[in-house]
Amino acid sequence: MATERTASVVWQGDLLNGSGTIQSVTSRALGPLDVTWASRSEEANGRTSPEELIAAAWASCLSMALSSGLAKASTPPEKLDTSVTVSFQPGEGIVSAALTVRGTVPGLDEDGFRAAAETAKDNCPVSKALAGIPAVTLDAQLAS
Amino acid sequence: MATERTASVVWQGDLLNGSGTIQSVTSRALGPLDVTWASRSEEANGRTSPEELIAAAWASCLSMALSSGLAKASTPPEKLDTSVTVSFQPGEGIVSAALTVRGTVPGLDEDGFRAAAETAKDNCPVSKALAGIPAVTLDAQLAS
Repeated sequence: MATERTASVVWQGDLLNGSGTIQSVTSRALGPLDVTWASRSEEANGRTSPEELIAAAWASCLSMALSSGLAKASTPPEKLDTSVTVSFQPGEGIVSAALTVRGTVPGLDEDGFRAAAETAKDNCPVSKALAGIPAVTLDAQLAS
Repeated sequence: MATERTASVVWQGDLLNGSGTIQSVTSRALGPLDVTWASRSEEANGRTSPEELIAAAWASCLSMALSSGLAKASTPPEKLDTSVTVSFQPGEGIVSAALTVRGTVPGLDEDGFRAAAETAKDNCPVSKALAGIPAVTLDAQLAS
């Protein structure tokens, strides 16, 4: 069965002078959260943005996909530290993303970890959905 | 200048028994937020998920793109109510998304509003990034 998740936003006014609020989401785990064009295209000033939410979605999904792949290979991770940076160029769009993972994985060497992380990057559902981002890089290493 | 937004996740354990936390984001507007596979693929139980965060990102971006387009056409909106539902099928991925907009736009008729919303759906940066989602629908109407 597919799961459905909904988010609602109210926007008032035009793009430059107006502002919006992420009012509610299915889980009620977040919101209300303010969003504005200025905080998306310049300094965040404490406000989230579409790109930041995508970064959070992707870091979560990549972590899940990698933990799944490692467990299937009989080397489940103790811990994965994952971060995603999304770059937004006004007038152009989401131009790139940088994925970084540091893993604590008993019994696995660097090459094995890197290969598992590449597979997770290519196959995690959020990566596949975000097929329109021109440049996506991955930096995967075992934690030192 | 491009803006960069980062989110960090710590995951512990395998996919089914492990769990993760969205620790921090650039703006500090949200987090820490727990994520688990069960709350993504079954009931949310108060936890957000990658798909819910994508829904929030998209609803924000669509609102901004539509407010911009309407203002450029000299019919800025008073208010836009935007919601996005993202469907996730475990084993298959993000299979579809439904975008809904209700607008209060002085001086614009239904056809004009629908056309502006279609343009925003096609051109908003998050729509373009999410090119890999197989089915995306739009329901746009003036608020009654």
